[in-house]
Amino acid sequence: MASVDVPVALLGYGTVGSAVDRMLTESADEIERATGHRLRVVRALVRDVGRERAYAPADGVLTADFAAIRDDPSIGVVAEVMGGVEPTGELVLELLRAGKSVVTANKQLVARRGAELFAAASDSGVQVRFEASVCAAIPVVKVLRESLVVSNVHSVLGIVNGTTNFILTRMEAGGTYEEALAEAQRLGYAEADPTDDVSGADAAAKMAILATVAFGARVGLEQVSYRGIDEVTPATVAAARELGMVVRLIGAARLVDGAFDVRVGPALVDRHHPLAGLEGPFNGVMLEGDAIREITLEGPGAGGTETASAVVADMVSVIGTTGTGFLQNDAVWRELPQLPAGELRSPFYVHLDVTDRPGVLAHVAERLAEEGVSIARLAQTPTDDGRAGLDVVTHTAAEGRLQVALDAIGSLDEVVARPQPLRVIGR
Amino acid sequence: MASVDVPVALLGYGTVGSAVDRMLTESADEIERATGHRLRVVRALVRDVGRERAYAPADGVLTADFAAIRDDPSIGVVAEVMGGVEPTGELVLELLRAGKSVVTANKQLVARRGAELFAAASDSGVQVRFEASVCAAIPVVKVLRESLVVSNVHSVLGIVNGTTNFILTRMEAGGTYEEALAEAQRLGYAEADPTDDVSGADAAAKMAILATVAFGARVGLEQVSYRGIDEVTPATVAAARELGMVVRLIGAARLVDGAFDVRVGPALVDRHHPLAGLEGPFNGVMLEGDAIREITLEGPGAGGTETASAVVADMVSVIGTTGTGFLQNDAVWRELPQLPAGELRSPFYVHLDVTDRPGVLAHVAERLAEEGVSIARLAQTPTDDGRAGLDVVTHTAAEGRLQVALDAIGSLDEVVARPQPLRVIGR
Repeated sequence: MASVDVPVALLGYGTVGSAVDRMLTESADEIERATGHRLRVVRALVRDVGRERAYAPADGVLTADFAAIRDDPSIGVVAEVMGGVEPTGELVLELLRAGKSVVTANKQLVARRGAELFAAASDSGVQVRFEASVCAAIPVVKVLRESLVVSNVHSVLGIVNGTTNFILTRMEAGGTYEEALAEAQRLGYAEADPTDDVSGADAAAKMAILATVAFGARVGLEQVSYRGIDEVTPATVAAARELGMVVRLIGAARLVDGAFDVRVGPALVDRHHPLAGLEGPFNGVMLEGDAIREITLEGPGAGGTETASAVVADMVSVIGTTGTGFLQNDAVWRELPQLPAGELRSPFYVHLDVTDRPGVLAHVAERLAEEGVSIARLAQTPTDDGRAGLDVVTHTAAEGRLQVALDAIGSLDEVVARPQPLRVIGR
Repeated sequence: MASVDVPVALLGYGTVGSAVDRMLTESADEIERATGHRLRVVRALVRDVGRERAYAPADGVLTADFAAIRDDPSIGVVAEVMGGVEPTGELVLELLRAGKSVVTANKQLVARRGAELFAAASDSGVQVRFEASVCAAIPVVKVLRESLVVSNVHSVLGIVNGTTNFILTRMEAGGTYEEALAEAQRLGYAEADPTDDVSGADAAAKMAILATVAFGARVGLEQVSYRGIDEVTPATVAAARELGMVVRLIGAARLVDGAFDVRVGPALVDRHHPLAGLEGPFNGVMLEGDAIREITLEGPGAGGTETASAVVADMVSVIGTTGTGFLQNDAVWRELPQLPAGELRSPFYVHLDVTDRPGVLAHVAERLAEEGVSIARLAQTPTDDGRAGLDVVTHTAAEGRLQVALDAIGSLDEVVARPQPLRVIGR
């Protein structure tokens, strides 16, 4: 195969962008062997051309002039590694309309404006690829689209946020949420303002993207409900341990009778579940489908070189494939309704603080039974203040009916506060 | 995209072949959406055209006449799902020379005759794909080739045989190797003659393929050393548990200073290692590389529909890609030497049966020290018969020097038998 020089461009030249440039330079031979093409960064859009960079680009590569990329007909592929939704989205749209394929590492952009970008790409006969937007170098998008093309994937369970996974596994060794968060910040696993991670918002964007690819139907960010981990207490972690489980922030996308349910929240995960073993800032995604039973992918879900590695692999895929169909661009081919709130069926865990007097257990069990919720396991622990903690694991139940029962339980005299259920992920 | 009818053929129509036909039929719409092509099985080579099949093929599909496939110019892709090395290898070669791409699920064929097949494919400008030959539906070949194209993968650690993993995890619940094997046979996880699995030979073929893809250099089956699990005793399993580890049959391929070492054998794996959690007949592969740190893939490593799913995904990839280069055909681009026996460095576990008298520990430690092997952990347990068991975990040591020390230790009066080391896979 004759070698073909392929000029490419970057939007952004920060940690990820400079790592992409370095990899394309240092691995030029590998890429040429694999594809017959030499990918070379000829332009990179930055705000400040004069700033010092982690990896020095070739002379004349850095530019503050977007048009120098958009209007250069020799550039066929651009990697968007600048982040943000605006003005990034408009720039990407302009590139697609100018006939350039775009590879992006930007989960907010794909989750919020994906439909628009894919449509523009299709119109121009180019591709948008976004492996790096979810779980960095873990190739879950490629595996879902290409390897599981005939598997009818109906469930995606993921630990897709490393910050929260670090905090939750750290809490297993003792200590409060606040202490674990402070340690995550010291180690660089959590930002000074950790809201986006600990609230579940970051995981929600990733799950919207994964659900869209897995189900072939658009799942909007506003259709993903999420709860954060700040409510997780040492008592929750200890109760989980007693039950043979661990607490994890789980993103769960499921197809139920032709409707999707996508949510993010803390859950109790059985110790023998493939995701339970994930420790520290790692990510993992378990895919379940008809033909494959289950496949789990694990690895570091963040990091500059890890993300850059996925960007480069996507650029190689753009060069090496033809077509702008479901494998290369938008994965959406159908519309699906969202499962009505409350209809999701799952086992749940509930913790109740109760005043320790006879009959309270019977009252709680009665309220659950009235809503058809049956109890799988129950433990009662007296506390120092004359109260007791009740830890309840239910059999599979409709969430809506459980919530009705918990409303009733919350208004019992003996119950201190209205309890919040956590999902249980069994093996 | 206009739909294009693509006639395909199968060699073999057993469990996997009939599942491929069924999937191509039932998922024809999905595949057309993804690729613009409808794949349709028009011929399947079988010995007995009249036999009843798990999934009934269309009229006239079954044929005992190989030439009806080879000489049909409308057939561009053939899936080899008949197994065996002869005559399968010759048939595949004829197909490649006739200009047809071949997808195969046959690990022995790829491990033994890969070089020849890939060369024939290159000559004809067609592809050979073999995802299904290793770990069924777990897409480790695709991930290695496409997603990790710039990652310089230098280590592949795998549990690539489900039979032995079932047996070893079953032994953790108590019972001997023989009892666990009998149960595996009852449940259909082990064949009546389990030799190929329990000897490590099956895993060795898979590791030869994975090492070849990961390192871009041909690793022959004869270059993979292997040991089986029949030597694993309940005492080994118990000692591992005491050390916070589990016993697993590990395939390990490693690049060391530009030379490869590929081997299969029982090893002690730290409980916190991603592969330690794999239970029952599952498979898992952990890939380590420069840019990605590590990525682990897990799932069922066998099964008719699981294997068929990988075959179909490969057929879709053949249709959807251009080129016959390193991404589509042979992954080999360089020659690498094999690491000389004994040069591999690793921590090891050694169990010694000794007569329980003063000084034996000192003698053992001396022999190890003479070869530069230092002890990380040691436990001594008296047994009923006046002897003692010594469990030793070394720091990282060159295997050759450890073996020299064990020769010396084996000839000590106090040591009952010449001990065999097991590798230790730490976290």
